[in-house]
Amino acid sequence: MEPTLNMFYGISILVAAIAFLFAAYLYVWVKRQAQQNKRITEVARLIREGANTFMKREYKILAIFASVIAVLILVLLPKPIWSEGAEIWKNVAMAVSYICGTVLSAIAGKLGLVVASLSNGRSAEAAKKGIKPAFLIGFRGGSVMGLIVVGCAVLGVSAVLMVVKEASILLGFSFGASSLALFAKAGGGIFTKTADVAADLTGKVELGIAEDDPRNPAVIADNVGDNVGDVAGMGADLFDSNVAAMTSALVIAQTLGAGEMNVMMVLCYAALGLLASILGIATARITKKGTPTKALNSSTYVTSALFLAFTAGATALFGFSWHIWACSATGLIVGVIIGLATDYFTDDSKPIVKKCAGASKSGPAFTILSGVSYGFLSALPAMIGIAVSALVSYKICGTEALIAEYGANYPLFGISMAAVGMLSIVAMIISNDAYGPIVDNARGLAEMGGLGEDAIRVADELDSAGNTVKAVTKGFSIGAAGLTVISLLGTFMSEANAAGANIAGFDIMDPTVFFGVLIGAAIPAVFSAMLILGVDKNAQKMVKEIHRQFDTIPGLKEGKEDAKPEYDKCIDVATTGALRELIPAGLVAILATIGVGFIGGPAAVGGFLLGNIVSGLLLSLFMSNAGGLWDNSKKYVEAGNEGGKGSEAHKAAVIGDTVGDPFKDTAGPSINTQITVVSLVASLLSAIFVQFNIFG
Amino acid sequence: MEPTLNMFYGISILVAAIAFLFAAYLYVWVKRQAQQNKRITEVARLIREGANTFMKREYKILAIFASVIAVLILVLLPKPIWSEGAEIWKNVAMAVSYICGTVLSAIAGKLGLVVASLSNGRSAEAAKKGIKPAFLIGFRGGSVMGLIVVGCAVLGVSAVLMVVKEASILLGFSFGASSLALFAKAGGGIFTKTADVAADLTGKVELGIAEDDPRNPAVIADNVGDNVGDVAGMGADLFDSNVAAMTSALVIAQTLGAGEMNVMMVLCYAALGLLASILGIATARITKKGTPTKALNSSTYVTSALFLAFTAGATALFGFSWHIWACSATGLIVGVIIGLATDYFTDDSKPIVKKCAGASKSGPAFTILSGVSYGFLSALPAMIGIAVSALVSYKICGTEALIAEYGANYPLFGISMAAVGMLSIVAMIISNDAYGPIVDNARGLAEMGGLGEDAIRVADELDSAGNTVKAVTKGFSIGAAGLTVISLLGTFMSEANAAGANIAGFDIMDPTVFFGVLIGAAIPAVFSAMLILGVDKNAQKMVKEIHRQFDTIPGLKEGKEDAKPEYDKCIDVATTGALRELIPAGLVAILATIGVGFIGGPAAVGGFLLGNIVSGLLLSLFMSNAGGLWDNSKKYVEAGNEGGKGSEAHKAAVIGDTVGDPFKDTAGPSINTQITVVSLVASLLSAIFVQFNIFG
Repeated sequence: MEPTLNMFYGISILVAAIAFLFAAYLYVWVKRQAQQNKRITEVARLIREGANTFMKREYKILAIFASVIAVLILVLLPKPIWSEGAEIWKNVAMAVSYICGTVLSAIAGKLGLVVASLSNGRSAEAAKKGIKPAFLIGFRGGSVMGLIVVGCAVLGVSAVLMVVKEASILLGFSFGASSLALFAKAGGGIFTKTADVAADLTGKVELGIAEDDPRNPAVIADNVGDNVGDVAGMGADLFDSNVAAMTSALVIAQTLGAGEMNVMMVLCYAALGLLASILGIATARITKKGTPTKALNSSTYVTSALFLAFTAGATALFGFSWHIWACSATGLIVGVIIGLATDYFTDDSKPIVKKCAGASKSGPAFTILSGVSYGFLSALPAMIGIAVSALVSYKICGTEALIAEYGANYPLFGISMAAVGMLSIVAMIISNDAYGPIVDNARGLAEMGGLGEDAIRVADELDSAGNTVKAVTKGFSIGAAGLTVISLLGTFMSEANAAGANIAGFDIMDPTVFFGVLIGAAIPAVFSAMLILGVDKNAQKMVKEIHRQFDTIPGLKEGKEDAKPEYDKCIDVATTGALRELIPAGLVAILATIGVGFIGGPAAVGGFLLGNIVSGLLLSLFMSNAGGLWDNSKKYVEAGNEGGKGSEAHKAAVIGDTVGDPFKDTAGPSINTQITVVSLVASLLSAIFVQFNIFG
Repeated sequence: MEPTLNMFYGISILVAAIAFLFAAYLYVWVKRQAQQNKRITEVARLIREGANTFMKREYKILAIFASVIAVLILVLLPKPIWSEGAEIWKNVAMAVSYICGTVLSAIAGKLGLVVASLSNGRSAEAAKKGIKPAFLIGFRGGSVMGLIVVGCAVLGVSAVLMVVKEASILLGFSFGASSLALFAKAGGGIFTKTADVAADLTGKVELGIAEDDPRNPAVIADNVGDNVGDVAGMGADLFDSNVAAMTSALVIAQTLGAGEMNVMMVLCYAALGLLASILGIATARITKKGTPTKALNSSTYVTSALFLAFTAGATALFGFSWHIWACSATGLIVGVIIGLATDYFTDDSKPIVKKCAGASKSGPAFTILSGVSYGFLSALPAMIGIAVSALVSYKICGTEALIAEYGANYPLFGISMAAVGMLSIVAMIISNDAYGPIVDNARGLAEMGGLGEDAIRVADELDSAGNTVKAVTKGFSIGAAGLTVISLLGTFMSEANAAGANIAGFDIMDPTVFFGVLIGAAIPAVFSAMLILGVDKNAQKMVKEIHRQFDTIPGLKEGKEDAKPEYDKCIDVATTGALRELIPAGLVAILATIGVGFIGGPAAVGGFLLGNIVSGLLLSLFMSNAGGLWDNSKKYVEAGNEGGKGSEAHKAAVIGDTVGDPFKDTAGPSINTQITVVSLVASLLSAIFVQFNIFG
């Protein structure tokens, strides 16, 4: 069949529409499920309201921030309006495209949150009837998020490209997605861990009451945190990665020769990935002898297989390049391998978690040392996986014949399509990921609603599956981010060259590049440190607030019926603090990029991006995996091993988990976003760095 | 004056001879000091014997290892003897030069250890008379090590070059120094922390007895550890850095045009650095109103100023290039700045230590999170410092006129001379660094010998100064290693080109390079993880051994007079374990280099070295500084702050310190050595990688 570009715009928009319709069906389905328990309805309402409070305030600040950026873009990008050869329509298009990126991501996050807060209570009540219905509500609630996020990404990218034709305008869209992700992921990450840490410190440690005891004034904030950090934040993060992968593939595709075949392929692959995910989601359920973990994992594999089959069919049908298909397949397969490796380091049925739990018997210092060590080791397989998939894709597309046909950028296009391949099943991944906080909430609600031991046990099993699967999906998304930023490096180079830089590459023997590499490598460490210190500072404030409530509300500590904690005060502390702490961290990363650009010009920025990517990948893998390992080690001890609950090993494991919390839920996953933001800032400002710099 | 190469060989050898004579004088001076206390003499003897046991076994394994490597070098390097154009004499020279590097480093380590174990007891006894005499014995004992190490380095490098004329043969010498450093630093690091951790766990934590209580069977091993890890290990590490800096400067100097002026300059600067250190050491003492910290720091500044003055004089006298002088000066000044920044993060009179101690009040998880965060932040100034000194040196030497006169490698020579400048005062640094473990031992001996409260207080003050200064010198040596490996990257490129690779640079847009970067970046993390896990495993074994002694030796736990612990058994556990754990870690690093070389050829290896350097610098700064921060936070709490000894904050701070121990004394500083070893392996095998590889 003779493919045309319009055909693929049509296909993309059609598949996105199917995703939205399916999401709407699932939403209605979830809403129809029974929610009768008054206490649960009440608490679920509190959680929903808390999440809304945070989102409203966050979006308000974001609106100001985004307006400022939009005006700056309007004036400066892609070229300052006063400069020679500037085309005003492009500046307008980029500013509008930036706003679209922000708004679409915000809508997706908000809708996902709405459904998540409908699902948690219903999943808890369904737990009384058994694991299968409870699982299905949790999973379908998460799927709504997955479908909307990826639907918005596919729709947004296709629509913007259809209107403006120039892929480089998409950088604005992608930057919009990134700036929202920075707020949602890092801000949500600070919020969730502030509440979690403060609730644990005052509840579990000081009073010895259970995790979700309603006496604790931080308990609602803690549950709100799961939603804003893990649902909305994670969704924004993956929206960002997904858009960035498509954007960089499209920017590179437009530099290639031989017509628009390559652009079509990007659109086609992204749409087919979404389609495969829709089918994977529709068929996911617990089989007769199955467990929730198996159900989640097998639907991931089904989606992957469908994607490979669909794209092979499309390649045959439309005469696309099999080389690129092979790159995408490599990316997807390596993604699965990275996920499995992550699983090996964080799953409590595997030896590493057991070793870490065993180390806890010698005291908390050994829990920490063991987690740090295995966290470091766990980075190796993913780094090798990313390195190999980049190298293999490059070699597949780097033959002389192909370069002669498509141009020197073709191998880079192969790498960017490996990233698209790895991210193809992202809707499925988000569904799995959003399932986690929903059932985590459900567990809390089952306890607060007094649904009985059996329901709590079911909810516990669902929750544990969420934790296990989270590790796999996190490995996946870090891997994909790694590949994406490699292609963003290529995007930066093309943009700088378009602005007249005439760069053939970034030579590490050039000390200007090297200068950038060293500074770039330090930034993820500084960024993480600032976020972790932010959590720390914030949690101390919330602990003070909780103590104030214990001291001034009579009967609260003793658990008297009529003593009501002021949940909203705690939510307020977390909200204010999260937004205040995240802005300096984000600014440091952005200002460092700009500073390096003005000092060393594009060469230094290229090095900066490389250093940032490399150390960012290393640290985010380390922190995410070490955090997951500590969390599951604690759960392993709590399941009665190494002395069980209340033993010295348990105390040590709890300390490990507390350290791991901001690692895995605040800093680790936010680094991804930091890398993308910095890469996009660099690409957007490339023309300015080419023009103004001291040493370049 | 018309300088000649022979003149500078003469000067180097003369200054080295002065250093040896002065060291001999100090040795005799230390030996003449009184040591009368029987208990101290006895314990000092035990420490000496323990250290000897370890060194003997280590050197035995090392001899086997070095023999195998020497044979491999003889057959393979610089070119396989069967290959065309191979010159047998070069292979012989390189093998011999390798052996010389190993043996000189071993001798320096051994002699340093002998003097350290003479000084500790004498310093303890002098503490009864006051702080000044006790300080002088500790410092002069350490200075012997500093003088011998740098004397051997200057002598060795000059002598080898004088005989073989070709600087690339020095790579063999440097590799010899590195392989010894890997054993001494990593092996010694595992030894010292095994003993320290096990002694703390059983003594302080289980029994609640003091740090140096003679009942504890691990107490001698702990003191031995200070000597083999901090004295011998640190000496070997800095011998290695110093030799590597000179070697890479000399290799690059020989590629430059305009005669042998540049080679002379390297020899001259190294010799003048040693001379400046000799004078600095000779004049160091506590002034009337001074403290030990001030004495140590001011002698560092005196040495730095002398070096700058001497080299300026030599530059004027011999007509050397002022550009290169400026590079050296930049390196030295940046080194001092890095040291001061490190001090800011680890000195207990500065705010960061106080904040970390304050965080301990909320429990150990916050101690850890705070230390990790500030550890990450602390990497930034050093990374910027290294980046700036590389960039500035490059710009100073990168003018068109200079490149026309000396060739394209001149800017790289500037960078290597910045490293030489930073390391010029290394003899002073080693003296300060070796002072630390000597007075640490002295403190223990004062307690074991029952010298009374006053002497212990004096010893405490000396010890605390050692800790503070250690941070500064550590920052210095990591910074210098960073600059050195940049020039080693240049060395690798020249070597690969000499073998016919025709590399103009390493482009990070080339996925083969990128592949190397990602793998290289993972290696320091894996290496550190293996060392830390090694300490952990070993410490568990030693705890078992201590429990066995407590259970089977009657009256030991109760502290009866005639119940003697079997100190040697603990030393045995530490020795065997250290050597067993370090070899796989070293092999992983070396095999990864070789694997990457065979897969991707020289381009991948270039990337590998870059990734290794960048992540290695980041992680070693992080771990060294976080460890120092936790150590000093604990001391700050023990000084009566935040609740003082026995408080919850103290318990938390002790946990932080236990985590920090293997960070700062095992993994952190060993990464330096790992980077150098890997860089040298790459340079040595460059010809083979050029010939045999899959994707290059």
